[in-house]
Amino acid sequence: MTVSYTAEVATCKGFGCFLKLLFRWRGSIYKLVWPDLFLFLGTYFSLSILYRFFLNEEQQLVFAQIVRYCEKYGNLIPVSFVLGFYVSIVVGRWWDQYKSIPWPDSIAVFVSANIQGQEEKGRVMRRTIMRYCCLSLTMAFTLISPRVKKRFPTLDHLIEAGLLLENEKEIIEELNRMVPGYSKQWLPVVWAASIVTRARKEGKIRDDFAVKTILDELNKFRSGCGILISYDWISVPLVYTQVVTLAVYSFFLSCVMGRQWVKPDSTAGGNHEVDLVFPIFTTLQFFFYMGWLKVAESLVNPFGDDDDDFELNWMVDRNLQVSYLIVDEMHNNHPELLKDQYWD
Amino acid sequence: MTVSYTAEVATCKGFGCFLKLLFRWRGSIYKLVWPDLFLFLGTYFSLSILYRFFLNEEQQLVFAQIVRYCEKYGNLIPVSFVLGFYVSIVVGRWWDQYKSIPWPDSIAVFVSANIQGQEEKGRVMRRTIMRYCCLSLTMAFTLISPRVKKRFPTLDHLIEAGLLLENEKEIIEELNRMVPGYSKQWLPVVWAASIVTRARKEGKIRDDFAVKTILDELNKFRSGCGILISYDWISVPLVYTQVVTLAVYSFFLSCVMGRQWVKPDSTAGGNHEVDLVFPIFTTLQFFFYMGWLKVAESLVNPFGDDDDDFELNWMVDRNLQVSYLIVDEMHNNHPELLKDQYWD
Amino acid sequence: MTVSYTAEVATCKGFGCFLKLLFRWRGSIYKLVWPDLFLFLGTYFSLSILYRFFLNEEQQLVFAQIVRYCEKYGNLIPVSFVLGFYVSIVVGRWWDQYKSIPWPDSIAVFVSANIQGQEEKGRVMRRTIMRYCCLSLTMAFTLISPRVKKRFPTLDHLIEAGLLLENEKEIIEELNRMVPGYSKQWLPVVWAASIVTRARKEGKIRDDFAVKTILDELNKFRSGCGILISYDWISVPLVYTQVVTLAVYSFFLSCVMGRQWVKPDSTAGGNHEVDLVFPIFTTLQFFFYMGWLKVAESLVNPFGDDDDDFELNWMVDRNLQVSYLIVDEMHNNHPELLKDQYWD
Amino acid sequence: MTVSYTAEVATCKGFGCFLKLLFRWRGSIYKLVWPDLFLFLGTYFSLSILYRFFLNEEQQLVFAQIVRYCEKYGNLIPVSFVLGFYVSIVVGRWWDQYKSIPWPDSIAVFVSANIQGQEEKGRVMRRTIMRYCCLSLTMAFTLISPRVKKRFPTLDHLIEAGLLLENEKEIIEELNRMVPGYSKQWLPVVWAASIVTRARKEGKIRDDFAVKTILDELNKFRSGCGILISYDWISVPLVYTQVVTLAVYSFFLSCVMGRQWVKPDSTAGGNHEVDLVFPIFTTLQFFFYMGWLKVAESLVNPFGDDDDDFELNWMVDRNLQVSYLIVDEMHNNHPELLKDQYWD
Amino acid sequence: MTVSYTAEVATCKGFGCFLKLLFRWRGSIYKLVWPDLFLFLGTYFSLSILYRFFLNEEQQLVFAQIVRYCEKYGNLIPVSFVLGFYVSIVVGRWWDQYKSIPWPDSIAVFVSANIQGQEEKGRVMRRTIMRYCCLSLTMAFTLISPRVKKRFPTLDHLIEAGLLLENEKEIIEELNRMVPGYSKQWLPVVWAASIVTRARKEGKIRDDFAVKTILDELNKFRSGCGILISYDWISVPLVYTQVVTLAVYSFFLSCVMGRQWVKPDSTAGGNHEVDLVFPIFTTLQFFFYMGWLKVAESLVNPFGDDDDDFELNWMVDRNLQVSYLIVDEMHNNHPELLKDQYWD
Repeated sequence: MTVSYTAEVATCKGFGCFLKLLFRWRGSIYKLVWPDLFLFLGTYFSLSILYRFFLNEEQQLVFAQIVRYCEKYGNLIPVSFVLGFYVSIVVGRWWDQYKSIPWPDSIAVFVSANIQGQEEKGRVMRRTIMRYCCLSLTMAFTLISPRVKKRFPTLDHLIEAGLLLENEKEIIEELNRMVPGYSKQWLPVVWAASIVTRARKEGKIRDDFAVKTILDELNKFRSGCGILISYDWISVPLVYTQVVTLAVYSFFLSCVMGRQWVKPDSTAGGNHEVDLVFPIFTTLQFFFYMGWLKVAESLVNPFGDDDDDFELNWMVDRNLQVSYLIVDEMHNNHPELLKDQYWD
Repeated sequence: MTVSYTAEVATCKGFGCFLKLLFRWRGSIYKLVWPDLFLFLGTYFSLSILYRFFLNEEQQLVFAQIVRYCEKYGNLIPVSFVLGFYVSIVVGRWWDQYKSIPWPDSIAVFVSANIQGQEEKGRVMRRTIMRYCCLSLTMAFTLISPRVKKRFPTLDHLIEAGLLLENEKEIIEELNRMVPGYSKQWLPVVWAASIVTRARKEGKIRDDFAVKTILDELNKFRSGCGILISYDWISVPLVYTQVVTLAVYSFFLSCVMGRQWVKPDSTAGGNHEVDLVFPIFTTLQFFFYMGWLKVAESLVNPFGDDDDDFELNWMVDRNLQVSYLIVDEMHNNHPELLKDQYWD
Repeated sequence: MTVSYTAEVATCKGFGCFLKLLFRWRGSIYKLVWPDLFLFLGTYFSLSILYRFFLNEEQQLVFAQIVRYCEKYGNLIPVSFVLGFYVSIVVGRWWDQYKSIPWPDSIAVFVSANIQGQEEKGRVMRRTIMRYCCLSLTMAFTLISPRVKKRFPTLDHLIEAGLLLENEKEIIEELNRMVPGYSKQWLPVVWAASIVTRARKEGKIRDDFAVKTILDELNKFRSGCGILISYDWISVPLVYTQVVTLAVYSFFLSCVMGRQWVKPDSTAGGNHEVDLVFPIFTTLQFFFYMGWLKVAESLVNPFGDDDDDFELNWMVDRNLQVSYLIVDEMHNNHPELLKDQYWD
Repeated sequence: MTVSYTAEVATCKGFGCFLKLLFRWRGSIYKLVWPDLFLFLGTYFSLSILYRFFLNEEQQLVFAQIVRYCEKYGNLIPVSFVLGFYVSIVVGRWWDQYKSIPWPDSIAVFVSANIQGQEEKGRVMRRTIMRYCCLSLTMAFTLISPRVKKRFPTLDHLIEAGLLLENEKEIIEELNRMVPGYSKQWLPVVWAASIVTRARKEGKIRDDFAVKTILDELNKFRSGCGILISYDWISVPLVYTQVVTLAVYSFFLSCVMGRQWVKPDSTAGGNHEVDLVFPIFTTLQFFFYMGWLKVAESLVNPFGDDDDDFELNWMVDRNLQVSYLIVDEMHNNHPELLKDQYWD
Repeated sequence: MTVSYTAEVATCKGFGCFLKLLFRWRGSIYKLVWPDLFLFLGTYFSLSILYRFFLNEEQQLVFAQIVRYCEKYGNLIPVSFVLGFYVSIVVGRWWDQYKSIPWPDSIAVFVSANIQGQEEKGRVMRRTIMRYCCLSLTMAFTLISPRVKKRFPTLDHLIEAGLLLENEKEIIEELNRMVPGYSKQWLPVVWAASIVTRARKEGKIRDDFAVKTILDELNKFRSGCGILISYDWISVPLVYTQVVTLAVYSFFLSCVMGRQWVKPDSTAGGNHEVDLVFPIFTTLQFFFYMGWLKVAESLVNPFGDDDDDFELNWMVDRNLQVSYLIVDEMHNNHPELLKDQYWD
């Protein structure tokens, strides 16, 4: 369920349009951050209570020293830097992944324009090519998205959804036995290419150009699926992710001690910091540092169940319906040609 | 109403050309920032008056402590970092969106060069293909831009504007009943492709090349429209926007207290800061941090009503007029071939 | 007049090659920055003299307080951040604009290879197509560059330069009356496409491939011109430019006070800063912050009169001469085929 | 052995999905950093013991001065900046390299669709073209990857693997004698192009289009191999790598002294820092600065033996098997055409 | 002489692979930085000796004040920022330039596959087209690289190298007289295009496709050469380079004074900094700031004599040899077609 808010920020008026975005729950920072914040504040107040009510004076002095130690070194952690560079990379990959998702519309237009015939043979050919494209993309989706995998756990579920036929399933299973271990999401595209060749031989396609055009589009489609799988296979290097996670968590580890209020130090003059009890700015810092990390967490795999993830299941349905619409219902069927309003 | 100022900065002379840009109102930082600034300064001076005239000495001491607390932690907020990385992403998407807007000129040139005939049939075909392209783009615009939506709230308004005919509207509505729920902005492009196929069959197009060329261009056009809708659908993740907004607003929350003038602290020697009454530098900081955020706010959806947004309504008109000009008035019609000035 | 210095930095030896670049005037930081620096130092020394010779002790104390206030808050302005991100965007656009400038050489090669005939008709066709390309680019240049506009303020100046003929001018003017308000720089490209179609009909071009190839190139050329105009029309958002300008100027506003030498503060021990009279490091800072801003100012519109701007007028001449050379003088005219030195 | 963890971070729930990534060993920061950390802590504790137990009071004072000196200047080293920019470049190159790896699938689809015939001649042609592609890629891999080089140290090992035949090896060796010194990974692609030309002459390919299509794909494949070798040949400039390495190591050189606990300085009041014995925050800093550097180290050559490197040997096997599957087993062999589930 | 070290960093083991890179001389930071370092340390120690042995107490006090002044303002210079952004741009351009270098291999494959005939005429045509490509690239190289210019100072040297024939030289010189002032590196490509047209007319090329394919490749090659020249002509704006250079040199100007050891200030308590005599951390800082600048210096023109520059002379030789190998020795000549090892 993608969170779209573009319409709400179309125009920037009054106090600005971003302000109202702060009062949303779905896909929001609060929804993602609250468990961590809860844990953080819990620890913070436990330590605070310990200091105020249970420690004797000497222990309080040691506590205060540790607080100062944590504060001093905590501020040396370059959280914003590490996060800035890391999130740039993750956001770049996230959008690249979206752009890599292939849509069958182009193929549908070419197939509809080039494969002739309203009789059964022509229709079956057109529909089957489109079905194979949708099948290929769906198979790729099951490999990368737990959500689509849950919907189509086996080939039989693809049959039920009308994407696969019984005889095709048998061939896939046979090839899986012959050459095991490699993903086979490209299989249906190869079949589609065979149908195109056959359509040319049988004269359903009238020129070699059209063959080349459709084959080119099929290859682009197949390579789009391949790129999606590559993004899944080659993650952002684990080390980088760990570095960032470590930086953020160590920062808040230092904050949970270092931001404690302690009694002013009598030896250093004038150090009488106010005791606000609730660490208001540390909480705000928690929101945006941890929120920034959550941006990365929810974008690093955009095919999951996060509020911000792409709606692959919706795409599966849309692709099949729109493909059939273009190559069958609308095939060579355009509105009557009439003079337009500005004619001479 | 795009704000163009490139002509004014063509040459960088004297004190530089950016200085004079500071004295503009349309599309300016002042126009965007003033309500926030007004609120900020109002709060600031209320607190200032409270401190100076209404608090007793003891309360003033507490106030001063809170001021120092806010100042210390406010400076820890990495506003410029978060803004720098976020605005980079937003500006990148903004320009990508502009580049994604398809223009029908290429199609017009190909259609004009390849679809023959000055008699009515040929002219209707050429004009209709171009009308369908413009219609497709306009339908995409209504999906992403509130301004274009306001101009064409229903299909009937498209008919009035001469972009759609009555019989076409009926087909669209029928297909909307058959396959509801998916946007149909690609429909006219599919019709245009059908007309191209028919023109080939009827001999208006003489070779298969031309068919392929026009179909390729139509597909590029359709995919341009699709990309525009994608940018609208997949916003910059909400969490990221919230993180940035939170950072900026918490910074100014800390400033509204932390930048207050307080009586010098007698215990710490030499701390006699001047009392300027008006927080000149904080106001400047407000201008560029808040202005920086407003850059993001007005670019995150460039299809709205902001001064800096793209002029989609102008494009709608321009595209139809220029398309008709190329494929009809200028069709296969070039100036007489004469020897040029440098001949031999 | 582009400033090329690549040859001077080919090899990095001794004390490095960048050092000698510091002693150049054309296109240099000094040339761009000196008026601002003059004003800055003037103000600085006026204030300095005021403090040293005209203020009494009490006034000096207030002055010193303001100095300390300015210094403290001036350092909070994130000039280098804002500039770093902004200049990245501007430099990116600058180079993209250069890359978008279309060159007619490809079209010339295709036209020369595919349009046959040394007799007058063939020659006129080849030359006219190339002239139309150059004309189209020049018309685009007049829209974006004040320098080219100054050279060709009206269509008559284009006739004088041999880029336009009298009869073509009349057609352009008529179309301008029919469809006013839109730029017409694409008109000549449409004419060129018409000539290509006609050449095919008259058998000057022997195959449909060649037609497609040339039309494709013409379209690329036209879209290159269109992109140039887009860059001119859609500037970097004004708000962003204002944010950066404000940041830099407020920084130096704070420096002109905050970097003043003031008498040591007797209450704070050990604060006896040396009085150098001339603010050497502030001047250096002025050079690179203001210089950095000037980088942006001179790149934001690379079609003006700055030392670093692209030499469009040179391109106009070069394109026409080289085009004619390729399609006419060198047409189908290559050196005799001889065995090369390594034959067998 | 690529480390994929995308599936584990599909959804960001509870305390976030990155937290559990911290407890992995393969490809982890701990595995990469522990030898350095061991050395660092060893030196740190040696110095600590020296200070506490072996130095007399006067020596301790000097030690403390050096500690303060190191701490002061150590913090001036901009490690996070240098690392941020450097790692951005390295990560960019790393992903570009992955994207440059050519896959033979497209060629297989085109070869299968366009080269006719189930008899021996057709099959040999199709299989040989694919074998040459795989051979070319494998030869490129041996040039850039020590792991693939170890598997195929000589041409004979390629013969054993079925990628090369005896007669082909002789030709390669002869050409190596004729034109020594240049890598020959493009040779098999040139042979494949020759087979395509011959297949056209012998009528196995029926149209010139198909020839062009396959040749284009072969060229893309060859240039992909060439780009891989370029990335290997033109490393990130050594100076840049050295700058980054120096920055990180000097930072930790300063830390090993500068983070030592020393007795409070009696002259400066109130400096009683707590003595934690174990430098907890310095160790954390070590983890993420050194880990960040290791990100660069393991990505700078993604064809080695690191946990995060690409699995080239797996690709070599997969490519040959899948290629043969597409052009031979599945050649023109698609499931029977049946009506799908949604057929009217 | 490119410095390749990728093989050495294939695997990151033990203390990491970057550590050993620190002990290299060719292309290293030490080789580039030592003259500057020598000068810097010389000045540093001169000043140090002056302070310790020649100044009287009062002069020492002034010296100390200047030291403190320099140290305070020196740290305000944002060297790492400016360098980070600038080097990003330079590294981007450096790699783009490498990618722009055209390789004749694609053209060779197409020419070999499409231009028929083993008799003299066919061979001369194929060889001449390739020679013209290599000639064009070499002429472009002489314009941008002092090293290639030194090898081919005149056209006669190109004749000697077998890239040019006497009669061709005359034509070039005549055209140079006719249209002086523009670079002519595209001339040979135009000739090559003429040969292709002629080969089609004489039936050496059998279809119009092949003509288009080769012409397209020739145009890509020509435009690659053009881009190389553009990068040379349009340098990174001089102002930007000067800004960066000024920043680095002013930083070290401030360091040479500001990092001097001075006697502790008796009025400020506890300031007894250790006197290390040798400024170890300043030297390290010098290494990586100056080294970072040298990265830019050696990459800003990658066609010079630096250790890291591209080996253009090697490319000139390689291109001609490999081109002749593909179009002549290997023309249409592939190993006998045999069944492979996995045949059924």
